[in-house]
Amino acid sequence: MAGRDHIRALLRPESVAVIGASKDPRKPGHVLLRNIRDGRFAGRLYAINPSASEIAGQPCFPSIANVPELVDQAVIVLRRERVLQAVESCASVGVKAIVIVTAGFGEADEWGRREEAKLRELAVERGLAVIGPNTIGLVTMGGDYRGSFVPFLGWTDGPTAIVAQTGIYAGAVALEMMMQSSQRLGIHVSIDIGNRVSVDELELLEVLAADRQIEVLGFYLESFANGRAFLRLAAEVKRSKPIVVLKPGRTMEGAKASMSHTGSLAEDDSVVDQLLGEHGLIRAADEEEFLSILKAFSFAPLPRGDRVAVVTYSGALGVMATDQLLSRGLEIATLDADTTKRIKGILPDWQTVRNPVDLWAGVDADPAETLRVGFSSVLADPNVDQVLGLLLAVPPADFQGFRQSLAEIRHGAGDKPLHLVMAGGLRQYWTDAVDGLGVPVHSSIRQAARAMGAATEYVQRRHLLPSAHMESE
Amino acid sequence: MAGRDHIRALLRPESVAVIGASKDPRKPGHVLLRNIRDGRFAGRLYAINPSASEIAGQPCFPSIANVPELVDQAVIVLRRERVLQAVESCASVGVKAIVIVTAGFGEADEWGRREEAKLRELAVERGLAVIGPNTIGLVTMGGDYRGSFVPFLGWTDGPTAIVAQTGIYAGAVALEMMMQSSQRLGIHVSIDIGNRVSVDELELLEVLAADRQIEVLGFYLESFANGRAFLRLAAEVKRSKPIVVLKPGRTMEGAKASMSHTGSLAEDDSVVDQLLGEHGLIRAADEEEFLSILKAFSFAPLPRGDRVAVVTYSGALGVMATDQLLSRGLEIATLDADTTKRIKGILPDWQTVRNPVDLWAGVDADPAETLRVGFSSVLADPNVDQVLGLLLAVPPADFQGFRQSLAEIRHGAGDKPLHLVMAGGLRQYWTDAVDGLGVPVHSSIRQAARAMGAATEYVQRRHLLPSAHMESE
Repeated sequence: MAGRDHIRALLRPESVAVIGASKDPRKPGHVLLRNIRDGRFAGRLYAINPSASEIAGQPCFPSIANVPELVDQAVIVLRRERVLQAVESCASVGVKAIVIVTAGFGEADEWGRREEAKLRELAVERGLAVIGPNTIGLVTMGGDYRGSFVPFLGWTDGPTAIVAQTGIYAGAVALEMMMQSSQRLGIHVSIDIGNRVSVDELELLEVLAADRQIEVLGFYLESFANGRAFLRLAAEVKRSKPIVVLKPGRTMEGAKASMSHTGSLAEDDSVVDQLLGEHGLIRAADEEEFLSILKAFSFAPLPRGDRVAVVTYSGALGVMATDQLLSRGLEIATLDADTTKRIKGILPDWQTVRNPVDLWAGVDADPAETLRVGFSSVLADPNVDQVLGLLLAVPPADFQGFRQSLAEIRHGAGDKPLHLVMAGGLRQYWTDAVDGLGVPVHSSIRQAARAMGAATEYVQRRHLLPSAHMESE
Repeated sequence: MAGRDHIRALLRPESVAVIGASKDPRKPGHVLLRNIRDGRFAGRLYAINPSASEIAGQPCFPSIANVPELVDQAVIVLRRERVLQAVESCASVGVKAIVIVTAGFGEADEWGRREEAKLRELAVERGLAVIGPNTIGLVTMGGDYRGSFVPFLGWTDGPTAIVAQTGIYAGAVALEMMMQSSQRLGIHVSIDIGNRVSVDELELLEVLAADRQIEVLGFYLESFANGRAFLRLAAEVKRSKPIVVLKPGRTMEGAKASMSHTGSLAEDDSVVDQLLGEHGLIRAADEEEFLSILKAFSFAPLPRGDRVAVVTYSGALGVMATDQLLSRGLEIATLDADTTKRIKGILPDWQTVRNPVDLWAGVDADPAETLRVGFSSVLADPNVDQVLGLLLAVPPADFQGFRQSLAEIRHGAGDKPLHLVMAGGLRQYWTDAVDGLGVPVHSSIRQAARAMGAATEYVQRRHLLPSAHMESE
């Protein structure tokens, strides 16, 4: 385990040196330097390259030993043969945190595995906080430190932290997220820990759990470094912060493909599944679910219970939503008589009002009033804990002031979650329109149901701790 | 069953009257008239309204009896109290096909159910081809006839037909599809049959199966009008045209929500599931799968077998894909020695090449060459039947000529299917870039695996016919 100050130097460096900085603007060693510079990084930034005096406007020195201060963090972008020596140099001058971008170690050949063992030994001996080898790096402080060669043009800070035991996954997720026109997951910390030579998910869980700006934690793990300790700590942390785990390897071939290290935890996926559940962690089945669930926790209030009202512009979508919600352990709420009475007022006399509530017949006469009364009625219903809205973003359903109406509906809903799924040609326009209102918009009914189910399960089980006999197993 | 010429009048009308056409441009009775006019409809179009002589530039008459020709099809947009009388008028002058847009019948109250029974009796007695009540209508002839109040600005013709037993679902799917910037499913026929008073899915299956422009059939059904006959015919049709069925009601509550008519088929969903499978039909679990599977059949060649090569820019995505493909019954191909040798040429020496093939380490040096060699090698491999590509649309992976490279890869692949999933900020840009190349781009790994699994299952089972004992059950 790296020391406290070493982890601080990894996540909140005050000075950074890029070893292997390049003058070629297409090379990662250049892009990385420029990314840190072009972000809002407030610390000092140095380039290390024996054949330049400045790169991208940053002072350049021939080696880490020549830098006029003791830097917190070094980012290494060198050929693999030169990495070990660079790490030794860093250690000898007192650098605390090291990001090894270079690949070709434990995931590669025999030479790489031997070299990685030496890196690990060195890191442990000196208490260094190392991520990589084989990582695209990390972005922390809500985007103020962009220690990665992926060029993030913008960044939205927020309550989420993502840790991935892989080279590029967390970075790719973050990049995609930050280029969306709306519904960006606000990310405070995003780390690809790569081959995991020193800093592991357990250490990061401990640090991130203590960070008051972080409210939700997402882990992509192919194996556990120390499964029992991670689960024990996670079971504590999840009482105040939901933890979502994306762990592939459900199939034997999948497990083979991940070349997971033989951890202390059983390889049998059903055991993994059971243990995650018993410790109150939420397991995402795939990358879409992972993001939908994180979105639910980041954007919406926690639900009080499992009774869902579905408000829909299409009967068919309502039927499909019923199937999906029930299969996620949610209930279809029985609406209060007052609610059905209020909704009847905006629909033709002949229409029976039941849950799912089909609003389509009212849309033609007055789309704004139909939306307002339809949603505010079910959100005010004492028999309803959360609402799923299925909107067809099509004429004649569209109207001026859609965002304002949704803002009022959301405001009037108090602490009840409202999730939306949009279909129809104006889908992106409507999705953008509700941005920032605290309303998650999911890509499909399946994702919405999964996210609502996960949030509900979390609320029901957050105070459970695994029983003593399980702990002592 | 309606007569042949009556169904022809529904799908390919030569003259149409809109009963209840409105001068108010916001009303469906106006929008509908304008949609037909603004499409490429080559037939004659009349408005019916007692208080106008023309609407939206179309000649207007006080009643259907005053129109100077016998029209093929009437579209009715009237208050529900006036619908039955309008249908009677149509029948008495010899109109063959009727689209009843108006809702408030069988799905509503006691009056509606009684009135619908009368409509059904009349339709059967006169052999009329009626869709609705409670439908947004239909679009046929590849967009040349747009008999719906949903304003489709564009339409892409293609090999798909969609039939939905609902008011609005097929129309909403079509609208969303036609507003996408790329990856539009080409739709030749889209029909919401509504409350199904005369024309049903069996009759449409028969007609659409015989249409040489239609190669793939998608049905959204909440219940079967005549389950056994439909399955028997579908088992024949599927030998040349894949049939994808989206049938909700997996849960009891879902079944309740669909208020399905009591059909001859068992209500038990597992029985439905088994029967669909035994007859070689493909069942989609939700609306996303429905579209992904239709896309696979529309865009890509049929696979020869179940051996998949995964080519990925992210190891994590490769691991997740392995899980998803195996859970859909596909195999992870063992690559030929020549293939691994060719790919080794574009990757660092230390990298082991196996399936999933992780190309990331080659992207930095030469993204275009990495893409070309990576994909063309696995597509040429005799041990590989189909390929799933997982691309990170991020710098430094992007390059000029991405579309041209993909076109060459696709061309060189012959009749092997290539499916893609894109992640990263340039995702939409890359997705648009490959449009029209015969490469389905799916929204997630899960959708891709499901679509590839469905196409493979289809190929393996298209020539099976249900055994005699099943037929006689």
